Formats: sequence, structure tokens, C-alpha cells
Amino acid sequence: MIKIGFLGPKGTFSHEALEIYIDANRDKEFIPCEYLNMKDILYAVDCGEIDESILPIENSIEGAVNATMDLLISKVQLQIKGELIMNISENLLIKKGSDINNISMVLSHSQPIGQCRDYINTKFSKVAVKHTASTTEAAIEVANSKGDKAAIGSRVAARVYSLDIYESDIQDSDNNQTRFVIISKEDFKRTGKDKSSIAFTTEDKPGSLYRILDIFNLWDINMTRIESRPSKNKFGEYIFFVDILGHRDDEDLSNAITMVKRKCSFFKFLGSYPAFDLNEYNY
Amino acid sequence: MIKIGFLGPKGTFSHEALEIYIDANRDKEFIPCEYLNMKDILYAVDCGEIDESILPIENSIEGAVNATMDLLISKVQLQIKGELIMNISENLLIKKGSDINNISMVLSHSQPIGQCRDYINTKFSKVAVKHTASTTEAAIEVANSKGDKAAIGSRVAARVYSLDIYESDIQDSDNNQTRFVIISKEDFKRTGKDKSSIAFTTEDKPGSLYRILDIFNLWDINMTRIESRPSKNKFGEYIFFVDILGHRDDEDLSNAITMVKRKCSFFKFLGSYPAFDLNEYNY
Repeated sequence: MIKIGFLGPKGTFSHEALEIYIDANRDKEFIPCEYLNMKDILYAVDCGEIDESILPIENSIEGAVNATMDLLISKVQLQIKGELIMNISENLLIKKGSDINNISMVLSHSQPIGQCRDYINTKFSKVAVKHTASTTEAAIEVANSKGDKAAIGSRVAARVYSLDIYESDIQDSDNNQTRFVIISKEDFKRTGKDKSSIAFTTEDKPGSLYRILDIFNLWDINMTRIESRPSKNKFGEYIFFVDILGHRDDEDLSNAITMVKRKCSFFKFLGSYPAFDLNEYNY
Repeated sequence: MIKIGFLGPKGTFSHEALEIYIDANRDKEFIPCEYLNMKDILYAVDCGEIDESILPIENSIEGAVNATMDLLISKVQLQIKGELIMNISENLLIKKGSDINNISMVLSHSQPIGQCRDYINTKFSKVAVKHTASTTEAAIEVANSKGDKAAIGSRVAARVYSLDIYESDIQDSDNNQTRFVIISKEDFKRTGKDKSSIAFTTEDKPGSLYRILDIFNLWDINMTRIESRPSKNKFGEYIFFVDILGHRDDEDLSNAITMVKRKCSFFKFLGSYPAFDLNEYNY
């Protein structure tokens, strides 16, 4: 039994991602554990209270999830053991059996409201729009209503709060995807289609980032992502987060990493894991 | 008279940054114009309603200000003509003449409360802490109180809402700085100590970012910052924001830019401007 943490409350997109992950790993048994903030989740893995956790790290519209990235380089000794890219599908949720013509208010968190702006303007132009602190709060308010309210939220929220999905995929753009990572004490064995994540601070000299990327170029290692976060020590000093193709057990990657480490004032290996393959997941 | 926009309401750190900028340019006359969202400010410059605007772009703890970066690469034809790095100084603001021993509540936005956690725990351990939507809202509530409330906010907020600064620089860490940029229709003439900002998307090929940085390396151009934002078209496709030392009128930089453009599927020059020099500002 694998205890796995997720960012609650129930019905969030993290909850939905967790269900996809569990579904894709049917040979294992999971116990989902709900936490209300990211720090608690990560510390729970670190102290052994739970075995793994699933955390959002990047969204195709909003960009990096800074809280996750800052936590990954904090004092915890944790590794990324997997990744999952999920389409963010927004749905119009109504109370079971209620009539869509009676809806006088649409509720959700500001972000889904922003992402469904065209839909709301077209179909609910005369209806009040209320912003809530979370999509879950909106779903609960709809569940407790007289059937005159609708929420925008996830499929999981519909199930958890026993709501009907009146319409699916109501978001204005279909390019909304979130990448989640699975965090554990150990990363994943080599599969041949792997990715590795590292974080580092370069020496305070001109061209120092270039020299790091030069090492990857020398070893023919492809970089799929580079993000920077402030080091929080000094303005203009950054911690770079780099994803590269390959596993730490690959000889080339291992040699490149050895060279990179020598050129960094801070270095943390964040794990090797199978690169996400959309075709392996059906959802 | 230069009409300059800032992110209000009055008393924000953007307002404080604007005052520093005006103070540093005493040879010119400015009319500050308050706007309540960033998009409106930028569009006001774009349509000629105002001449320039000051916008936060990067904080030493929170990182990039995504809203500003996304706006800079939107359809507006605007340039960065200056930058300014400001120390974020939090202050305890009380109603004029009130007694600190009577304070039963400390109010502010979540961010300043987080940044003054140690101070609050040490000096106001038995006092209620209330989160407000903005520091300005907190300042107004203190101004309207009976002298039993204190707000955490900027020096400018103290002046605007006629509050006393009971204690200055109460933030737990002194590494809290924000970089602001001045946006206008034209950038700044060459001074010899310049910086340029560009944004680009590389071709969808392995090693394409490396090849761009290689060009800067060939021309001995120093990069001071690289940030990435999602392109919003396709997951895993990024727009890079790069700051380099030099002016577009410098021959080397101009040659490098010509080469970089050829290797990008999207390129936008965001302006050349004098690199900020802490010693020129007294605050």
C-alpha cells in the first residue's frame, strides 16, 4: 500500500491528476492522503508519514509553479520519480436534477472564470458571476443551493460533491495543460526513455550559464526546459532548473553531470524518471 | 510635462518606486496617473493617453512578475527606457497619536505579513493578525480605526493616509528588492553603461537555446538574466526573456542581434536603457 499525498481539498485538479496516476498504475495499491498546503505534503514525504506525493510544477498558460520549485530545492532530500501531463478540462457543474434555465449565478475561482470567459459571455451573459476562494468552495455552494447556481470545476469535483456535469470542456482554449511530478525518497530506475531534473546556481562570472549548457552540448544531451528562480540571497543571482533527456545511470549523462557540478556554486540532483508519454494514458 | 502611469491604489510599492524615479529625474516634470490594473497602464501608453509607465518586473524573493512579462510581448509596440531597483521596506503604520500598547490587531496583505512573520511573532505575539486584499486597504482601515489597529505597509502609504510610521524596515530579511522598468514608446539613447532586453522563441530543435547563447558568447556579450514563459501555443514551447549588457547602437550587440533573429521563430526587441546604478540613487 503506497500512501500518496495530494493538494486538497477534494475535487482539485491535483486530486484529478492523482486519480489518473493511480489509474495508470493499477498493479499497485494507493491510499490517497489529502493535505491543504504544499509544504505539509513535501514534509510528510520527507519524514516518512507518506510514501509519495503528486505536485503541479508547470502550466502551459500560467508557467512554472514557483511554490513547488522552491520546495524542491529546500532542505528536503526528495527526488522526482515520475511526471504526468494532464489536460485541464473545465466543466459546468449543476445540482443534480436542476434546470439549466433556472441558473441565476455562476461561481468559481478567478482562474477558471478567466479561462471560460467566452463561454460565460455567450451562454450566461445575463447571469451573475461570483468569485470564490477555490473551485471546491464553488462546488459546495452549488451542492447546497436550491438548484439556481452553477459552478465551474473539475470532473472529480462533480463526483465528490454529487453534482451533474451539464457541459464538459467549456474552457476557451484547449492548450491548457498542467505537468505534475511525483515526489518520493527515491527516483525511478532506468527505462531507456528517461528525463532528469537538476537545479544549480552558476558561479558569479560572465558566461557561466553558457558554459554549463556547453557541457550538455558536448555530451549531446538535450535540454527540454530551463527555468530560473531567484536565489533569495542576492539580487540578480538565480537558481536554474533544467530538465534534460536521459537517466543518471546513462554514462554520458553521468559524465556531463560530474562536469556541471564542478562549475556550480550550488547543485542539486532532483531525480531521473520516465519521460511522460501521452499515448500511454487514456483520459 | 510627462504623464506617467503606475499601479495603484496610492500607497503601493509601485507608487513608492514612481516617487523615487521622479526624484531621480528632477530636471523633468511628471504627472503621476493611477491605474488599477497592469493591462490598462500598458494600453494607456500604447494609445498615447500617457507618455510612460513604471511596472514591477522582478522581485528578489518572488521572482519574475509574469503579468508584466506577458504584457511586454503582447501586441503593444513599447520599449523599456529605464530600470530601477528598489529595496522593499515594510513599516508598522499606526494612527497618528495612538498608543502602541493599545494595538489589538495588525493588518496587511498576506505577502507583507509573511515577510514580517518574525517581527509580528516577537512584538505582537498576542495580537490578532488580519489579512486584507491589499496593503492600501489595511492602511485605510487603520486610518478609520480608534487607534487600536496597526498596518504593515510602505512609507508612501503612511504619507497618503496620514499615518505614523511606528517602526521602519520591519521585514525579516533585507534581501527583498524589486526591479521596476519604465515603459515608453521609445527606449533610451546610448550612455555607455547600458542594458538591452529581448524576448524570443527558439526553433523547435534540440540545442536551439544553446545556439542562441553561443552567439552572445561569440560576440563577448554578457547575459545578466534569462527567464522563460510558456508560449501558450504548445506545451513545452517557451518564450525566453534575456537581458544583455550593451546598447542596440553598439556594433557588437547589433551584429549579435541580427544573428539571433535568424535563429528564432519569434523575436521582439524590448529596448536599450541605462543599467541601474545603486550609487546614483539616494533613498
